[in-house]
Order: sequence, then structure tokens, then C-alpha cells
Amino acid sequence: MFIILVYDVNVKRVSKVLKTCRKYLHWVQNSVLEGEISEANLKKLRMELNRLIDKEEDSVIIYNLRTTKYSTREILGLKKGGEEQII
Amino acid sequence: MFIILVYDVNVKRVSKVLKTCRKYLHWVQNSVLEGEISEANLKKLRMELNRLIDKEEDSVIIYNLRTTKYSTREILGLKKGGEEQII
Repeated sequence: MFIILVYDVNVKRVSKVLKTCRKYLHWVQNSVLEGEISEANLKKLRMELNRLIDKEEDSVIIYNLRTTKYSTREILGLKKGGEEQII
Repeated sequence: MFIILVYDVNVKRVSKVLKTCRKYLHWVQNSVLEGEISEANLKKLRMELNRLIDKEEDSVIIYNLRTTKYSTREILGLKKGGEEQII
């Protein structure tokens, strides 16, 4: 499946959250990552994030597109992501 | 069609970019908006954003999912968005 993950966490936890997400996904912009991921790895990622974040303060949204067959991605302005990933 | 929009723009332009996006979409988190939008309105939004942003410094990503039939959204931690929008 293909997911888009967006996080909004306290600056104290940003580097840990980003590091965890990058184990499974490609970074595309600021607080946005995306990528193909297996059901098992998504479960792991979710568990790791649930341990890391403060649920009273932080927010992580996971969009699960299942497939990229019906989706496109378009960038206005700068392409900030480090890695190429064709959606 | 259904889009997810994520912006990463200089703080000087954040309020204008957010205001423009909110004319067409629902705010869901920090720099993330989503919603149903017509082809015509997406064109307008794109034009307005292209006028607002500095292409050397800012970045806006638009994911076009076409339909939400194949997608789900899951939130870990806080639900920060102001508006309800069932994906």
C-alpha cells in the first residue's frame, strides 16, 4: 500500500519522529513523508510513533491510498524532498 | 475530485497562503488541508498560489486522489483540524 504521513509534533520530538518515519518512508517536504509500505511495517511504524508522540500535544495523520493508480502528485515552487519517488 | 494540500512556505507568506487554501479546502493540521474540489476551482487555487509563493523558497504539494473510495485517513494523537471531513 501507499501512504502519505504528515506530522505536527512538538519541536522536542521532531528529530525522533522524523528518524522513525524515515526508516519506512521517503521524506518529501518539511513534515511530510510518503511511500510504499507493507501492512506489517505500517503496524510497526504506528506502534513506534504511538510510543514517541505526546497524545495531548502532537498529531500524526496517515493517509492510506492503498494504490497510487488513482492518484497524482504535483509540486508548486520548490521540490524540497531529498529522494525521488514517482507517485 | 479530492485533494490533499501540504505547504511549506516562508513564515511571511503563511497567513496569505493559508487564507487562500481555506477558500477551497478544509484545514486538517498545521500546514495540511484537504477536500473535495472541482477541476475549475483547483485551477483557480493553483493560479492564486503560484502568484503568492516564492518559487525559490516555498513549496506546495498537491496530492490529487480523484476519489476517496480507495483511501482512508487515520490520526495518531491530537486531532487538530477545525472542521470535520470524512474521507
